Amino acid sequence: MPQTAETNRRFVLAERPRGLPDERTLRLEQTQVPCPGEGQMLLRTLHLSLDPYMRGRMNDAKSYAKPVEIGEVMTGQVIAEVVSSSLEGFAPGDHVLAGSGWQDYALSDGTGVLNLGQAPENPSWSLGILGMPGYTAYAGLLKIGEPKPGETVVVAAASGPVGATVGQIARIRGCRVVGIAGGAGKCAHVTDTLGFDACIDHRAEDFAARLAAACPDGIDVYFENVGGKVLYAVLPLLNPFARVPVCGVVSWYNLAGLPEGPDHGPAIMGTILRMKVKMQGFIIFDSFPDSTHDDFIRDMSRWLAEGSIHYREQIVEGLEAAPAALNDLLAGRNFGKMVVRVA
Amino acid sequence: MPQTAETNRRFVLAERPRGLPDERTLRLEQTQVPCPGEGQMLLRTLHLSLDPYMRGRMNDAKSYAKPVEIGEVMTGQVIAEVVSSSLEGFAPGDHVLAGSGWQDYALSDGTGVLNLGQAPENPSWSLGILGMPGYTAYAGLLKIGEPKPGETVVVAAASGPVGATVGQIARIRGCRVVGIAGGAGKCAHVTDTLGFDACIDHRAEDFAARLAAACPDGIDVYFENVGGKVLYAVLPLLNPFARVPVCGVVSWYNLAGLPEGPDHGPAIMGTILRMKVKMQGFIIFDSFPDSTHDDFIRDMSRWLAEGSIHYREQIVEGLEAAPAALNDLLAGRNFGKMVVRVA
Repeated sequence: MPQTAETNRRFVLAERPRGLPDERTLRLEQTQVPCPGEGQMLLRTLHLSLDPYMRGRMNDAKSYAKPVEIGEVMTGQVIAEVVSSSLEGFAPGDHVLAGSGWQDYALSDGTGVLNLGQAPENPSWSLGILGMPGYTAYAGLLKIGEPKPGETVVVAAASGPVGATVGQIARIRGCRVVGIAGGAGKCAHVTDTLGFDACIDHRAEDFAARLAAACPDGIDVYFENVGGKVLYAVLPLLNPFARVPVCGVVSWYNLAGLPEGPDHGPAIMGTILRMKVKMQGFIIFDSFPDSTHDDFIRDMSRWLAEGSIHYREQIVEGLEAAPAALNDLLAGRNFGKMVVRVA
Repeated sequence: MPQTAETNRRFVLAERPRGLPDERTLRLEQTQVPCPGEGQMLLRTLHLSLDPYMRGRMNDAKSYAKPVEIGEVMTGQVIAEVVSSSLEGFAPGDHVLAGSGWQDYALSDGTGVLNLGQAPENPSWSLGILGMPGYTAYAGLLKIGEPKPGETVVVAAASGPVGATVGQIARIRGCRVVGIAGGAGKCAHVTDTLGFDACIDHRAEDFAARLAAACPDGIDVYFENVGGKVLYAVLPLLNPFARVPVCGVVSWYNLAGLPEGPDHGPAIMGTILRMKVKMQGFIIFDSFPDSTHDDFIRDMSRWLAEGSIHYREQIVEGLEAAPAALNDLLAGRNFGKMVVRVA
């Protein structure tokens, strides 16, 4: 069912999942396309971004953002086209970055909406390398990770939009960079195309030993986006004064409760203590000053123009495919930044 | 057996303990009092400090300080008297703060030795409130914890030398301070004498609920010195951008391996992520610039003179009593800063 001018397809949260989302989690509804009032504009979704944080928003948990309510449209960033507008600064045909969520059409009063102009080059990049994932990598690595030339930086989900960017920036900054990814194909991409010094397959039986062998001088910065066994293999390798920006724990997002033991709490806290580690969680929306975002846009635009940062998207066709694609993402079956082509 | 002028009693590490140290861990030896050579002085121990970190030094683990070797004198800070000296700046009768370890006499070339003068007031305070524990509290709280007026600060081992100091400094800085201690007597001391706003007995069945009730506005700074169930009760109460200086995890120091589950790793890392928490381990020897120590001595001396900081010692009589006293300390059976009167 393609996008039409008459109907608004939208996914709403039908029930909170325990563990992996399934067919009961999201419900596809059809409504009329809404009419913009005074001071509003109508946005038509072109691309929807899929990101790991979405799983967290399905939970009713104390967090940095309020959860999606039952019956509410599932949250998400989109590239949209302005259909009609009575707002100054937004004209029909403009491309915008907006928080419309998982639907074809949305009204907006312009709050939090970024105008990309009439014919932007690579508009979907504003969902990735020039948007939230790229900025997450940039600010988390540079402002919390503080990598220094010659240091060893480790990042998991290394072929994903955040991990790939973290590693490439760390390389630019003169670090030894070790990625972690799932499968030989992704690992080859990470070393051959992205230029990491090494990439370890987390599916390998002897993963922890391989990681240790790839980090002969220990680990100075571990950019945390997965948690689980990767974190537990990293802990004994952390050097004194190591920094751990905590950006995500995707391997744990589907947990319905605490997993079986042993309890790694003493290992985490003991390592922080003995190695004087700084671990810091961050959310790009409120953890950094605006000037950091300005620096990001300037630096990243230059790196992309120079060809010193490589960026890969995985395009999924059609809004209906979004729920299965999100599960693929949560299971690490994506290869590059996941974007749903909605229009 | 008291200290004599002829014999050096010393405790050496006989074997590495698994779990709590026992009678096989440390061995009492007697040797001749050593003779100082050129560029050396002979120190006679007056007071030996007992501190939780000592348990960690008994392990053969990668840490900030090298472990005590088997057969080596157990490490420790002491207040000593200079018996004889060919060193400029150290005269017989001077009191000094030194790292002589668990023994009556030691030779020193003056490295790392602080001269307290001929007749210092409260020399043993340099082992506590004006020494390592006081500085640990001061720098960890103010430099990593960064408490702001009106914020809620939680600290465990609140009647111990570090916890008591953390809480009192936080009160001076205008924070609401909630302590955690073991037993009604210690809790009464913490609120009535130290002036904390509340103190929760960690032995209470409903400890977690009581802690939550005592922190109606959540927790902004958790000064971590115990780990275990206290940490796990704190996690759900942490506010956005909370700071957790990690100074110790004494409840876990005797672990021979990871404890049974569930695995709290996801709770720790998920909280750091969602609440944008900064957790940072530190060791006062190398985590802060010298200027911080200067600030500490100035501020703490003033607070003690004004009577706005209260300090309590628990004096143990005789070097032979040190091993049992260390176990008391590790089990939380002390009440105040533990100091062994050796001479």
